Parts: sequence; C-alpha cells; structure tokens
Amino acid sequence: MTGMIEVFGHGGDVETAASRFGGNPADFLDFSANINPMGPPQNVLHALEQGLQTILRYPDPGHRAFKARLSEYLGVQPDQISVGNGAAESMALILLGLAPRTVGTVEPGFSEYSALARQFGAEVLHVYGREAMDWRAEVADIERLMDQVDLLFLGQPNNPNGVQYSVEVLHRLARSAERTDTILVIDEAFMDFIPEARRQSLAPRLNEYPQVIIIRSMTKFYAIPGLRLGYAMARPELIQAMTAKQVTWSVNGLALIAGEACLQDGENFEQETLAYVSRERKLLTEGLEACGCQVTRGEANFILACLPEPWSATVMQAALGERGILIRSCAMYPGLGERHVRFAVKDADANGRLLSVMQSVIAQSNPQHISQSHPQDIPHVKEGGLNDDLTVS
Amino acid sequence: MTGMIEVFGHGGDVETAASRFGGNPADFLDFSANINPMGPPQNVLHALEQGLQTILRYPDPGHRAFKARLSEYLGVQPDQISVGNGAAESMALILLGLAPRTVGTVEPGFSEYSALARQFGAEVLHVYGREAMDWRAEVADIERLMDQVDLLFLGQPNNPNGVQYSVEVLHRLARSAERTDTILVIDEAFMDFIPEARRQSLAPRLNEYPQVIIIRSMTKFYAIPGLRLGYAMARPELIQAMTAKQVTWSVNGLALIAGEACLQDGENFEQETLAYVSRERKLLTEGLEACGCQVTRGEANFILACLPEPWSATVMQAALGERGILIRSCAMYPGLGERHVRFAVKDADANGRLLSVMQSVIAQSNPQHISQSHPQDIPHVKEGGLNDDLTVS
Repeated sequence: MTGMIEVFGHGGDVETAASRFGGNPADFLDFSANINPMGPPQNVLHALEQGLQTILRYPDPGHRAFKARLSEYLGVQPDQISVGNGAAESMALILLGLAPRTVGTVEPGFSEYSALARQFGAEVLHVYGREAMDWRAEVADIERLMDQVDLLFLGQPNNPNGVQYSVEVLHRLARSAERTDTILVIDEAFMDFIPEARRQSLAPRLNEYPQVIIIRSMTKFYAIPGLRLGYAMARPELIQAMTAKQVTWSVNGLALIAGEACLQDGENFEQETLAYVSRERKLLTEGLEACGCQVTRGEANFILACLPEPWSATVMQAALGERGILIRSCAMYPGLGERHVRFAVKDADANGRLLSVMQSVIAQSNPQHISQSHPQDIPHVKEGGLNDDLTVS
Repeated sequence: MTGMIEVFGHGGDVETAASRFGGNPADFLDFSANINPMGPPQNVLHALEQGLQTILRYPDPGHRAFKARLSEYLGVQPDQISVGNGAAESMALILLGLAPRTVGTVEPGFSEYSALARQFGAEVLHVYGREAMDWRAEVADIERLMDQVDLLFLGQPNNPNGVQYSVEVLHRLARSAERTDTILVIDEAFMDFIPEARRQSLAPRLNEYPQVIIIRSMTKFYAIPGLRLGYAMARPELIQAMTAKQVTWSVNGLALIAGEACLQDGENFEQETLAYVSRERKLLTEGLEACGCQVTRGEANFILACLPEPWSATVMQAALGERGILIRSCAMYPGLGERHVRFAVKDADANGRLLSVMQSVIAQSNPQHISQSHPQDIPHVKEGGLNDDLTVS
C-alpha cells in the first residue's frame, strides 16, 4: 500500500524523496503535501519568535487558552472541543476512546482512516466512489455501510478528489447514524480552503447531531504542518472519551501559541488565501488539461488528475522527482488507477514551473521506454541529483 | 489523586496556579517542574530560530536524522530506538504496543505509570518504598511484584525521591524479568542530571537484557518541555511493537531540530549543568534543613523534603503560591504523607529567594491558624495577586 516515495503512506516526505532522487530535502518543489501556498500568517511567525522562550515550560495539558479562543471562534462550548497533536491524533483518540470494532471508509479516501483503525484493532470495511460522480460514493452505499460498522470516516471535502457531499446528504447520513447507532466522523481538514458560501458542513448545527464528530486541522490552511495542531468537535460525552485516552502534554507549547495567533488575525489571511487558491487552482487545472490530464472537478487546494496515456503515476513521479518536483502518486488509493496523481495548488511561480517541466517531460519522452527499460519502475536517478534533462534509456 | 494545583496530576501547571493564586502564569518562580536551571543549550535556541521556517513542512515521520544522531550518541542501532512526543508518549506506546494486562509500579513514583496503564486498560499493582531506604523498595518486594505483573515501571533515578537502585540490583531485576516473562521499563528521564561516574544504568549493555526497555527524556535536561521529545531503547521487536501504535507525525519538526542540536554540542553543556546542579542542590538542601525540613538523600535535580511540623504540603504550597513561588505537593503520592513536598533545583537566585521566603513564612506565621480558619485548606488569595505578606486570619 505504499508508493515509491510514499513509504509512510503520505505525501510531503522530502527525506525519502531526497534519498531516491538525490538533492537536498528542503530544495524540492513539493506538490505532494497540500499546504497553503501563502505560508503561515505573518503574526504566527512573529508569535513563535516572541514565544520561543516558552519551550522552557510545560505546555498547558488542558489547552485552556487555545480552547477558549477556539470556542469563541467556532461558537461551541469548550467541553465540545478536543485539541489534538494534529488531526491525526484526533482520529486516533476517537478510535481509542470509542473503541469501534468495525470502521467504514469511503474509498478513495485519506489512508489514515483505515491505517489507524487497523492499528487500534478495528476491522475495516469500504464502499467505493464512482468515477462519474467525481469519486463520490452513492449515498445509499454509504448508508448500507453504516448498517455494518460502528464508526464511519468521511472526508469533507474528501482527499484526494477534493469534492464535498451536500449538507442535505450529510444531514441524511447523520440521521442514519442515529438510526444505526454509528458514529459519523466528518473530516473537515481541508474545509477552510473552500469559500464560506460553498462550504457544506454540519458544524453550525453540531448540537443537532449527537452521533457526529467533526475533525479540523490547523496544519494545512495555516501552513504549520511541522508544529502539529488539530481539533475535534462533538457532544461532551464523546469529547470526554477522547480526552481520557490523550497522553498528557501531547500538544506542544509552540503549536498552542501558533493556534491562538492563527485565530487572532484570521480574517484577511483567510480571504486572501481563498482568492489566491481559487485563481491558481483554475490556472493549474487548465494547464494540466493542456498537458492531456483528466482533472476531477473538486474544489479544495489540491487537484486529482489522471495522466494521459501511456504515463503512469510512478513514471511521472520519477521523471519530475529527478527534476526536483514532488507529486503524489495516487496509484495506491483503493479505487483509483495507475495513472492517478494529486497536485497541491501552490504559488503561481511553482505552479508555472510544474506545468512547464511536465510539458517538456511529456514532449521529450516516451514513458514506455522508461518503464520497459526499468521493470522495477524506478527510472535511473542520475548522479548530481536534480536537473532538467530527462533520462531515457 | 490530584492536589490543589496538581489538577492534571503534575507540577509545572502555571495556568492553574495563576487561577488559584492570581498573577501571570509566566511570572511564577516554578519549583514544581524539574527543568535544567541553565535553560536550553544556546545552539538549540539558535537552531530553532534558524529552523522556524521548517514548520511549513511535515516532520519526518521516521525521525531519521535525529535517530541517526541518537544511534551514534547512544551506541545502539537505529532499530533499537523509538523517538517519542515526550517520554510520556514512549510510555503510552509501550502500553499500547505490548498491551500488558497487569502493570506494576513502585510507590512513590511518577504518577503517569499508573495513570497511563489504567488509561490503556491494565490493572495496576504496587509495592511501596521504605522511608529508612529513602523510599526505595526492597528488591525482594519488587521481584514478588514481577511475579504478578506483565510489565513493571521503575524510575531510575526515581521521581519524587531522586534515588537510584544499584546496577547490581538492576541486573538482578532484569534477570528476574526474564524468568517471570515481565517487561522491565526503566525510566531514566532524570539520569542525565547524575554525574556519569555515579549513574546506575543498564543502557551500556542493553543487548544483554531482552526484557528491558529504557526510556529517556530530552525535556528535562535540555530544558525543552514545551517542545516534547523523548525516546526509548530496547530490542528491535519491542521497538517495532511501539512504533506500530505511533500516530504519524506525532513528534513535531521543531522538537526534532532541537533534539539534533542538543546532541551536537552537548559535552560542555552537560558538564556545566552537572557542576551547577550539584552545587545548588547542596546549598538548597542545607537551606531547607535550616528551615526545619527533613530532606531525602537523592541525587537528581529535585529534592524530596518533609516539612517541619505543623506545616502541611497544601498550606505551604498556598503560602508560597501567594508569593509567586510554586512548589510540588507530594501529598498525593501513594506512600508519602501530608508534609511531603518536592523542590526543583533551580538557579542560585531562585533558590535563594525560595529559602528566604520560606524562612519568613515560617517565622511569621502559625500554619494551624491558616488551616483552621480555612477548612477547605486553601488560604485566602489576596486581590492583586503576588506579594510578600502572609495572610493570617
């Protein structure tokens, strides 16, 4: 289930990329991790510089200051919030706290849903999205899955395709969750990247949905994946079950400082990000289509695309990797094929560079030569690392 | 099992202290958390300033660079090391990965041993240390406990009393662990504070002890508790079991950068810390004895003391808390009494201030008046927060 450079099952692993393709980990143009191209808000970096001395103290194990600010920002009570060491910890705490015997996922979806569920002893069942529906699953299929599982994960918008279910569908699923006594975990890690008017979320009426847990990440939108910060919202009983399994001080002090700063000066940053990502997403989509890619109609800060024949994700990843550009192979997502790749929407320069390198790679080469001459499907990595010439045997 | 300000079961909670005693959390002179009084090595702060931009990238989920450096520093193989989000995560991963049904602890000891064991579903059994042995337990008692449990935690040096078992005793316990098929977890979180010649550790011959896991913290000695970093050493099979339960990216990127920097320039920092803490520990011990305290003969960077009659830990904590000084009540440690408190060894100025305030508090007041007039055992906290006058009704 891992790819050539997705040895941990995820994008953003520049260390593995550097060991495969040569070069310095920090020098890759990384389209494999879906981080806000604007970087963190300026006041976050400032708060971290100012707050560096706080590393001499233990973080607040109750996350009280950040939780109070979140409570205000979200309009929910502090006892409806669990702060996590990244959204991944929130997922783990749900699984540890509620101990579902069976977990359902909708594929293709974020691989941690299944990985964590198995890690903590649950059996995992899937339903699959349909290509004609941009890899959304039929609602009836999801409901049938709910009949069979104790807990279901749903990405909203979903990773890697970037599509949402409508709030009406979510409402229906939440009601089914009550009927079937299933916990419905809605992962809104990328929701902030969708303009407010188009967001399909149960969050504003969370109190009406006792079986729903909503997970959010601060990592992607605020561009602080290295710090780790996320949270979950649900009724207090579910939050208590999660907190009971949390290791003391698991959320570090700088993440809490950054989290407070993110929410303090969010408005402008949010608007600028939405405008920027929307514009760049459109341009990148057009450019990828001009390269012959078939692009899924999503709306988050990443793009699922099917490469033109005869390119495979693995061969394109290697061809770009040798040129210092990382993309995410989606060949290992259940339900997707050999030609699926995911691109983060980055800044204009980076996106332009990706498109021009892809164009030249496609124009210059016949990828079948590469895959035929290297049956292990990893093209030769040249000494000296990253450069612009394509290696074709 | 929590104290007046130990609502999370630990020291260092300046937020709770501020809400009880008034004042700003950052302004407390905190003797309740056992952090190196020298602060972090200068190159660590420098590396963090330089590396702040790395928060834009995901941390390496394999902790490869830090683990390689640790491997060199410790003289063990990388597959014998598990890096954790603080030593607390390492403990949790041991419990999750090995799933002991019964866990043994030696009391008084670090409260997380029992708390985490119960959190993850184990039954907890104890043996108790003896006052005449500075709260060490009889080796035969520990061995009898091993007969009954799947896993045993042992602090070395132990918190809160700061004493070690000899390496001969550890060897005997490790052999008993093989005979009884018990995992022996030796928590060396404070070992770095003991001069090398006096350290009693199985680490140098780890390969000879298949049932032993050694936990270390980077948090205390390198004064980075806000960042969270620790590690465990054991045979690869045990390490794999731990890693299998670790949430991806649980160790943040700045912690990894700090960890590398700590090991890079450690030698001078280590020697200076040992000399400083040793001198200050001696002076603080003498000062506490002059105040009428009975001091346990430990050797770490903290001191367990029994307050003179008729002071209780709670009343002294409140009297000092109102003056901006936090101490750790040890009344909730199983095996200890109402008068036990723990003091971190801090810098000379701070230690001097603690002693002078304690002297004046003891000289000016009769604590029985306080506890009688406030049966809830929390003396009146004056408006305006921290000052030097004692409130006696």
